[in-house]
Amino acid sequence: MRTTTGWQADPGTRRLRRTTLMRRDLRPDDLAIRVDYCGVCHSDLHALRAHESDAGGVLVPGHEFTGTVREVGSAVTGFAPGEAVAVGNIVDSCGTCPMCLAGQENFCRDFPTLTYGGRDRQDGTTTLGGYSREYVVREAFAHHLPAGLDAAGAAPLLCAGITVWEPLRALGVGPGSTVAVAGLGGLGHLAVKLAVALGATTSVLSRTREKADEAHALGADGFVLATDARQMAAVRDRFDVVIDTISAPHDLAPYLRTVALDGTLSHLGHLGRVTVDTTDLLIGRKKLGSAGSGGRPSTAALLRFCAAHRLTADIELLPSSRVNTALDRLARNDVRHRFVLDMSDLDRQ
Amino acid sequence: MRTTTGWQADPGTRRLRRTTLMRRDLRPDDLAIRVDYCGVCHSDLHALRAHESDAGGVLVPGHEFTGTVREVGSAVTGFAPGEAVAVGNIVDSCGTCPMCLAGQENFCRDFPTLTYGGRDRQDGTTTLGGYSREYVVREAFAHHLPAGLDAAGAAPLLCAGITVWEPLRALGVGPGSTVAVAGLGGLGHLAVKLAVALGATTSVLSRTREKADEAHALGADGFVLATDARQMAAVRDRFDVVIDTISAPHDLAPYLRTVALDGTLSHLGHLGRVTVDTTDLLIGRKKLGSAGSGGRPSTAALLRFCAAHRLTADIELLPSSRVNTALDRLARNDVRHRFVLDMSDLDRQ
Repeated sequence: MRTTTGWQADPGTRRLRRTTLMRRDLRPDDLAIRVDYCGVCHSDLHALRAHESDAGGVLVPGHEFTGTVREVGSAVTGFAPGEAVAVGNIVDSCGTCPMCLAGQENFCRDFPTLTYGGRDRQDGTTTLGGYSREYVVREAFAHHLPAGLDAAGAAPLLCAGITVWEPLRALGVGPGSTVAVAGLGGLGHLAVKLAVALGATTSVLSRTREKADEAHALGADGFVLATDARQMAAVRDRFDVVIDTISAPHDLAPYLRTVALDGTLSHLGHLGRVTVDTTDLLIGRKKLGSAGSGGRPSTAALLRFCAAHRLTADIELLPSSRVNTALDRLARNDVRHRFVLDMSDLDRQ
Repeated sequence: MRTTTGWQADPGTRRLRRTTLMRRDLRPDDLAIRVDYCGVCHSDLHALRAHESDAGGVLVPGHEFTGTVREVGSAVTGFAPGEAVAVGNIVDSCGTCPMCLAGQENFCRDFPTLTYGGRDRQDGTTTLGGYSREYVVREAFAHHLPAGLDAAGAAPLLCAGITVWEPLRALGVGPGSTVAVAGLGGLGHLAVKLAVALGATTSVLSRTREKADEAHALGADGFVLATDARQMAAVRDRFDVVIDTISAPHDLAPYLRTVALDGTLSHLGHLGRVTVDTTDLLIGRKKLGSAGSGGRPSTAALLRFCAAHRLTADIELLPSSRVNTALDRLARNDVRHRFVLDMSDLDRQ
């Protein structure tokens, strides 16, 4: 086994403490990656909250990170030590089901192996995430980080980025499209940047008037105050695609009304059960969709696209020792727009 | 005013009785149509049930009919007496809203004028439907019935047909598509015929084993017994488009599971409020849509398509005097697949 250092929540707690972690010895197709930057995702917060009432094991969050290849297994062909890499929220899948064959390993019928809190398909151990200085991963689930992308700002592309990229692409967003993004957090701000870069006319729907400047700074053409009935009425049937990144349960009807004829509202993340009045779909032949995470081919495409457009997340970089502060602030939505942890402090005693 | 004969439900009753009806004198852009064949739609049943507790007025149902132009107003340019025409479930709209301008008068923001039970936009009177020997309509909302289409079998195209045609077209169904149709009634059987004619590989999902032969007779390639978990599992993630014509409230989850990656389940009609688990949408990035009725351009396109493919509804033709029987049997789903009333008996005393 290999040893490294990372941030772990012990059984029954959500506070992270620095400790020594074990990583598996390299299998033939494994890479050992020095984790340089790891994004702090809302999922990490949810996982830690759930972990608080779980006496069973330890939790090491982190599933959007960039780093440097340290060592490669004997059968690795695509990576060499010293290369820049990126890993997202899945690290393995069955590889044979129709979803995997379609390049949507995130929808693997046998459930993909999550980057943390997952079950390794070979030895059955629980995966420990990227809040650590080293990660060992199958090369098939690592991505080359294109030159020219800032490694810290690129980390959130691997989860927040791909989560908004897949629906934008699947829904055909490009020049001529009209897109609205509801909510302007980690997901939302990347949705705006990507939609703009894809050539769409892009608006932000927000319940916070103060976000207007931010929206325009991100490249949005329009800002609609979602609490203002008149402003919402003015964009009725307007947007081909509405990317709804609001994580709290909310009434979808006002947002569906802004969807154009034959358009789609795609909600990201796990809202659980939602109720819609089918009339809100019928009038205008609208569609309600959902998306989350991404497959390997589209993740690679996203990274290429972002490199070409010099597009990364707007981040606040903190030393990893401040991870608990980052999580507390994230819980209060006190971040613009994503925390990224600099893991280099783990090299120091 | 003009007088004609038709089938009317008096205030507070759902039984139809033969009586004399008034039609407006022709406005410059009106046609007077001799109604030859009128389909019996589920909506008629719902409207009559609602009418039973409404002491307010009279109800004359019927919103899918074919006939012959009897007389034209002074400004009519597109029709001449003797020509075959067809009318669907809307007979006017504002004409200026974005939906009307997009040719989706069925979604008119000012609400389209329904063929019966609607409010005439000029004189405010309540529209009386096609269960009558004459109908007066703006020429803009009448369609030429193409030669070669059986006028009786074509009548249901104007409501049931267009209701399934619009989502099929809007969702891009064509050669190479895989389509499933859930439910095999008036809507469902036309959905199968149209999907097959559009070149899609088409399956029927039904809870009734006995419908398998029927499905194949309509041209379906596959039949899936929806109550058989094994059969449903075998078509998981299979269909690009699922057209759900089941009118009773039902759990959408088993049907969503049959939708392919990036596919859509389109429910037709008015289910009211439905609850879905967003996970059933997220896994496979699926979409839930709804559709109903149609606009003028697509109705015209449907009629051309049906004429080219010699495609009409499978009907049971009854003299209009048996309208109450037809409605009773429809309430028991005892019809394959659509009743059409032959209105010529109204010429006799």
